[in-house]
Amino acid sequence: MHIGRSYQLKEFLVWTRRIIYWVLVIGAAPTLLYQGLGLKWLAIPWTVVALLGTATAFIVGFKNTQTYNRTWEARQIWGSILNSSRTWGTMSRDFLRKNPQKTQELVYRHFAWLTALRYQMREPRAWENSSNRSNEEYKKFYTIPERESSLETELAKYIPAEELTYILSTKNRAVHLMSLQSKTLGDLFEQKELDSYQFVEMERIVKDFYDHQGKSERIKNFPYPRQFATINGFFIKLFCFLLPFGLLKEFDKLNESVEGIMKGNMVWMVIPFSVLISWVYTSLEVVGESTENPFEGSANDVPISQMSRTIEIDLREMLGETDLPPALQPKNNIIL
Amino acid sequence: MHIGRSYQLKEFLVWTRRIIYWVLVIGAAPTLLYQGLGLKWLAIPWTVVALLGTATAFIVGFKNTQTYNRTWEARQIWGSILNSSRTWGTMSRDFLRKNPQKTQELVYRHFAWLTALRYQMREPRAWENSSNRSNEEYKKFYTIPERESSLETELAKYIPAEELTYILSTKNRAVHLMSLQSKTLGDLFEQKELDSYQFVEMERIVKDFYDHQGKSERIKNFPYPRQFATINGFFIKLFCFLLPFGLLKEFDKLNESVEGIMKGNMVWMVIPFSVLISWVYTSLEVVGESTENPFEGSANDVPISQMSRTIEIDLREMLGETDLPPALQPKNNIIL
Amino acid sequence: MHIGRSYQLKEFLVWTRRIIYWVLVIGAAPTLLYQGLGLKWLAIPWTVVALLGTATAFIVGFKNTQTYNRTWEARQIWGSILNSSRTWGTMSRDFLRKNPQKTQELVYRHFAWLTALRYQMREPRAWENSSNRSNEEYKKFYTIPERESSLETELAKYIPAEELTYILSTKNRAVHLMSLQSKTLGDLFEQKELDSYQFVEMERIVKDFYDHQGKSERIKNFPYPRQFATINGFFIKLFCFLLPFGLLKEFDKLNESVEGIMKGNMVWMVIPFSVLISWVYTSLEVVGESTENPFEGSANDVPISQMSRTIEIDLREMLGETDLPPALQPKNNIIL
Amino acid sequence: MHIGRSYQLKEFLVWTRRIIYWVLVIGAAPTLLYQGLGLKWLAIPWTVVALLGTATAFIVGFKNTQTYNRTWEARQIWGSILNSSRTWGTMSRDFLRKNPQKTQELVYRHFAWLTALRYQMREPRAWENSSNRSNEEYKKFYTIPERESSLETELAKYIPAEELTYILSTKNRAVHLMSLQSKTLGDLFEQKELDSYQFVEMERIVKDFYDHQGKSERIKNFPYPRQFATINGFFIKLFCFLLPFGLLKEFDKLNESVEGIMKGNMVWMVIPFSVLISWVYTSLEVVGESTENPFEGSANDVPISQMSRTIEIDLREMLGETDLPPALQPKNNIIL
Amino acid sequence: MHIGRSYQLKEFLVWTRRIIYWVLVIGAAPTLLYQGLGLKWLAIPWTVVALLGTATAFIVGFKNTQTYNRTWEARQIWGSILNSSRTWGTMSRDFLRKNPQKTQELVYRHFAWLTALRYQMREPRAWENSSNRSNEEYKKFYTIPERESSLETELAKYIPAEELTYILSTKNRAVHLMSLQSKTLGDLFEQKELDSYQFVEMERIVKDFYDHQGKSERIKNFPYPRQFATINGFFIKLFCFLLPFGLLKEFDKLNESVEGIMKGNMVWMVIPFSVLISWVYTSLEVVGESTENPFEGSANDVPISQMSRTIEIDLREMLGETDLPPALQPKNNIIL
Repeated sequence: MHIGRSYQLKEFLVWTRRIIYWVLVIGAAPTLLYQGLGLKWLAIPWTVVALLGTATAFIVGFKNTQTYNRTWEARQIWGSILNSSRTWGTMSRDFLRKNPQKTQELVYRHFAWLTALRYQMREPRAWENSSNRSNEEYKKFYTIPERESSLETELAKYIPAEELTYILSTKNRAVHLMSLQSKTLGDLFEQKELDSYQFVEMERIVKDFYDHQGKSERIKNFPYPRQFATINGFFIKLFCFLLPFGLLKEFDKLNESVEGIMKGNMVWMVIPFSVLISWVYTSLEVVGESTENPFEGSANDVPISQMSRTIEIDLREMLGETDLPPALQPKNNIIL
Repeated sequence: MHIGRSYQLKEFLVWTRRIIYWVLVIGAAPTLLYQGLGLKWLAIPWTVVALLGTATAFIVGFKNTQTYNRTWEARQIWGSILNSSRTWGTMSRDFLRKNPQKTQELVYRHFAWLTALRYQMREPRAWENSSNRSNEEYKKFYTIPERESSLETELAKYIPAEELTYILSTKNRAVHLMSLQSKTLGDLFEQKELDSYQFVEMERIVKDFYDHQGKSERIKNFPYPRQFATINGFFIKLFCFLLPFGLLKEFDKLNESVEGIMKGNMVWMVIPFSVLISWVYTSLEVVGESTENPFEGSANDVPISQMSRTIEIDLREMLGETDLPPALQPKNNIIL
Repeated sequence: MHIGRSYQLKEFLVWTRRIIYWVLVIGAAPTLLYQGLGLKWLAIPWTVVALLGTATAFIVGFKNTQTYNRTWEARQIWGSILNSSRTWGTMSRDFLRKNPQKTQELVYRHFAWLTALRYQMREPRAWENSSNRSNEEYKKFYTIPERESSLETELAKYIPAEELTYILSTKNRAVHLMSLQSKTLGDLFEQKELDSYQFVEMERIVKDFYDHQGKSERIKNFPYPRQFATINGFFIKLFCFLLPFGLLKEFDKLNESVEGIMKGNMVWMVIPFSVLISWVYTSLEVVGESTENPFEGSANDVPISQMSRTIEIDLREMLGETDLPPALQPKNNIIL
Repeated sequence: MHIGRSYQLKEFLVWTRRIIYWVLVIGAAPTLLYQGLGLKWLAIPWTVVALLGTATAFIVGFKNTQTYNRTWEARQIWGSILNSSRTWGTMSRDFLRKNPQKTQELVYRHFAWLTALRYQMREPRAWENSSNRSNEEYKKFYTIPERESSLETELAKYIPAEELTYILSTKNRAVHLMSLQSKTLGDLFEQKELDSYQFVEMERIVKDFYDHQGKSERIKNFPYPRQFATINGFFIKLFCFLLPFGLLKEFDKLNESVEGIMKGNMVWMVIPFSVLISWVYTSLEVVGESTENPFEGSANDVPISQMSRTIEIDLREMLGETDLPPALQPKNNIIL
Repeated sequence: MHIGRSYQLKEFLVWTRRIIYWVLVIGAAPTLLYQGLGLKWLAIPWTVVALLGTATAFIVGFKNTQTYNRTWEARQIWGSILNSSRTWGTMSRDFLRKNPQKTQELVYRHFAWLTALRYQMREPRAWENSSNRSNEEYKKFYTIPERESSLETELAKYIPAEELTYILSTKNRAVHLMSLQSKTLGDLFEQKELDSYQFVEMERIVKDFYDHQGKSERIKNFPYPRQFATINGFFIKLFCFLLPFGLLKEFDKLNESVEGIMKGNMVWMVIPFSVLISWVYTSLEVVGESTENPFEGSANDVPISQMSRTIEIDLREMLGETDLPPALQPKNNIIL
């Protein structure tokens, strides 16, 4: 997540420079052929382009609404994880007054669950964009905590070695960490440290965590439907391709009212203007695309590492610990 | 679900080739009559087409929003099934410490319920599109697990023969499998293996499963309203039909400023451009249509077979089993 | 609900034929005056019509979104009724193991509640459209079960005569049938057949049914706000009225480039084109209108009679009955 | 709420006549100056107006979506009040079998709460529109029950004099009526007339009523944000002001192709057309505005008085009363 | 929140005067060069601007929808805080009949929690707009209670000194105040002043408060995504920059039909019209921006200080206190 005022125009231009090269070529080619070689028949009526332009605006708008919703929902889910975690902390403490060690076990295993979940969320998927050349390049400006240290090292801070070995052997680690929480609750109920009512209440929080995890996995594993992504891409490419052909005639007409050195040369203006318009349309699409997958390790990710750390600090303080880990800090205004 | 980066232009063109033939015909016919036979009165004002084009863009946009929502909701419902299933697994295990056999019965019957439900979801409906020729053709690229093996065979893996016979005799198998779960819970309560509080808590999860099943059936059985689908179809067909007539005059005007071999022949350009525009509009509609019904066995389905398998793996691991079935694998990037 | 592939163009044309007559008149009149009597000053600038056309598209789009939402919400509510009913069935059976007669009483009275509710839903309201001449005509193609048999007859199948007399004397029958359910639960609690926990749990399902009923009544009794419906109607009528005036000039201009018999006669084309465009806009509006009220007994209704029957079948099977009523069948692809 | 088929064109014209006078003036003034005094430079390019017209359509559309949502949410909240009230009725009766007097106290105090709440909802706010001259005028066609009789008189029907005195002394009467309900429940629990489980269950319904009341207060006290309302107003006024200037040239051009008495006089047509278009745009805005605040005592209000009466009838019938108050009746199709 | 009828045009103009200066410069410059220096080639086709104008309207519309949703959700969250607080008040009183001192402790600590939360919400963030020069200037018209008095002073009114010292030492004060509530509940359960069922019920309200707090923090800490804000800014600036260039030709054409002193001078009209249009577009964007962050201490904030005071009054009245603090009053129609 970018937490500054806004991206700078300069960094935006650098980030989208490959697009600019590309639209420059498709803007310059027809202009050269039309003006340089005199192929006047290359011009197409503006009406065709305008019709397509409106439809494209609809489509890009639709896509951006959905990608915005994906990111926003992802943030909501992790917000719910934060909220339920605070409840987990107080319940683990106040339902188990006589057994602070079990409280600590439940809370620390919760940190392990958060860790396993965020590592799973940051694994790559085929449809994600963070390995695009532009995005790959941009990664030097920030840090992805899940790529700095191994899952094993991180989990070892929270759970005993034996449990760690078991967890690493399972397919979905977060699921089985939470399953161990339920097992511990079952033990506490058997040993009458929790009454039936408290036991079921805490099982409900376990259920909540399964819900949050499942929702987070849904965003991760179910991309913006590929059929829509595909057709959107066609639309925008077609529009950018036809745009300069549509502009030729429009600028050519201006020659009539122009005098002096520019007379007869107005068509060259097609190049900057087609680049400008194609760039804003394509940038809009690209911005949407890089918001689509909120857990891909890009600069626009939901900051799940930071949130996990916040939870850790809050819960440790609840346990009365004073040696707290520091909050994660942004680098170049980017925090993950 | 397509889990690759995107569909290829080529496979898209092959898939939509029938549309292309069709728009080619309706684009070529008026052009031939206008240019070839000189029927100049066939041209209609572009303004008519532009007005219709904007309205069509609205309508297609509206439809695609709704079809997207249908698929997304379907995925949410099955995500909830996954989440509740994990809770079912932990509760079945941790509420019934002394009776692991009953735990297994509850968990295996749950697999049976998942199986019955996904078979019901993949049954054909009159309004579905997967039996269109284009979609039928495309089916050779992927596998629909529910068409590979019979329901009976699959259910037999999870429930005893007697129960299977009863279940196959009922109208809605999934409903009665879940009803058997409730019966088992009632038995456990009678035998004091569950206390009142735990019994009701598990009945609530049964209620959740009935909710998820009912929601899934709602998406399956209540199509995008046929009256809207009908009028949308009229709109788009009318637009594609009128488009070339509207373009005739626009391209004819270009003849004035063109020299050489193209002079007088600009009208022929109507054909490629009307095909292009009609194709993008129609493709958009068709993409929407093939997203409409997320359980029809098409390449864009919600992957309910894969998700059911994921649940099976997670729950068997919770029971301590180690001989786990493999995760389902995509074929040509398509997984169902 | 229409459960076929789509409405046929032919039946659509028949259904909207009154609209066609009407737009034909308002399209032909100005054309006759302009071309026949030479009243050239009747033409108005296309720009005025185009501006209005865009605004009208917005408004019709807005309305259709809301009417779609109303129908979809209605279906969700009845889906919830179905889900809660299945839970009601299992709970009535598994909480009352020792008293199958009470189980049957609770389940049969539930069928009575469903019956009373669907009869209430199908009563006419002033703002509904099913008594329009076009819709009235169309009713011969399908059956409305609530108009075939009286409420009294239907209720008598499920509840004793004395209870029936009382229920028929109340203002809102469904409310008081559900209130009787709660009374029965209170009796069962007093007689210790339900423990406190189970009693309250079933009272919650009663609460759910009150919620579902109330939501269903909300859709029924709170129409799409009349002030919006009114202004929408003005907009679309104004647009259709002005459209031919705006087209006159546009088609007249075509005369310049036309030769032969059509020269000077292009204005006559205003008639088919204004009819065509007015028809699609008006049809869109009319389709929206006939989706607005999902319980009015129209061909686009939510199929609450069919769903009630489905519930009856599922719950009777749960009670072990084998003499089940048949599922309702569509007539001409329409099922209510 | 208007419960007829639709508003009549005539009453709509009367209601908006001040707008019509106003747009007539701003339409006539530039036309007179242009045509009468020959100030040809007053004409502005249509393109400017068209651009603004599209943006205005967006903005008005946005506003109407939000105002529609506000009214619809208000109806949902009061629907929930109705649903929870029915549950309150059955629980008060069936949890307190041995103490029908307490049942009656709880139910009658609930009527008092409904009364206090609807009186609070119908108090005026600075941003409401019901005191506009047009709306004030229209009030003669219907009745606002909360303005017919004082709160004190109405409350006295339901609660004892002493309680009434206390309630009238509090800041938020509905809150403290509900607080008394909780107090009575606490008494009943202390006296063992409710067990712990039933007590907490009824406290939850109290919580629900606090939620419904708070949501209702939210709609009442948090207007459609004034900054949006302000900028919307500017937009629409600017558009209506510029519209006739933009039309001047468009109609002037028609003079070329017109013969006879109308030649040279086409510009006068600007007046009716600018009035027509300005009127539909402004009416749309005004309709939105009068939907914005669903509790202001306007003809488009959510009918909370009628709904409160419905609840009273249903709950009195549940208590076995037969001397029921009549349902509220609409006046001129308007019911509040 | 502004609680008057609307902002005045005058205060709006003053507030946006920097924008006006800016669009005046970019409107005047090309006009001077075109008309004054005769650089006719500066004109660009209107079509380019129109295309961009539509796309810009889409984008601004999208942004305003999201910013509206953020403010509305913020109000919903604080509405829920108000609702749950009233429940907290009645439960604290009616579950603890025998211990009014503990009731008061729970209620007063709740006021402390509200105070800590609203101070946290009003802390500045990098992306907020309230420190813009225009907004900073406007602050003299209203009061931000959280900037008038320190958190320590305010908290000291509600909690004992020792508790205050501890709370001020924690990272997230609101979290730990709520954690103390849970601790007190745990004590009461240990001392048998609450039974298990009541204890868990009140823990659930604690959970609700954690949820509300977390949601409030989500709105505060997760801005409208900076990548969207950035691209929106580019779009609108580009549009305003190109607009006067597009208008040059349009107004120049009007010279043909104008006589007298204005002949040849119509181009100067570009300046007022480009200022007008740029101003409405930019104002719309700026209004959206100042709605984006509902807790930044701007005139459009959700009135959380006022709401906290309302809660305090309601709850003190529930405790039977009569010496109530006064409701907060708006200043110049602004209340925070």
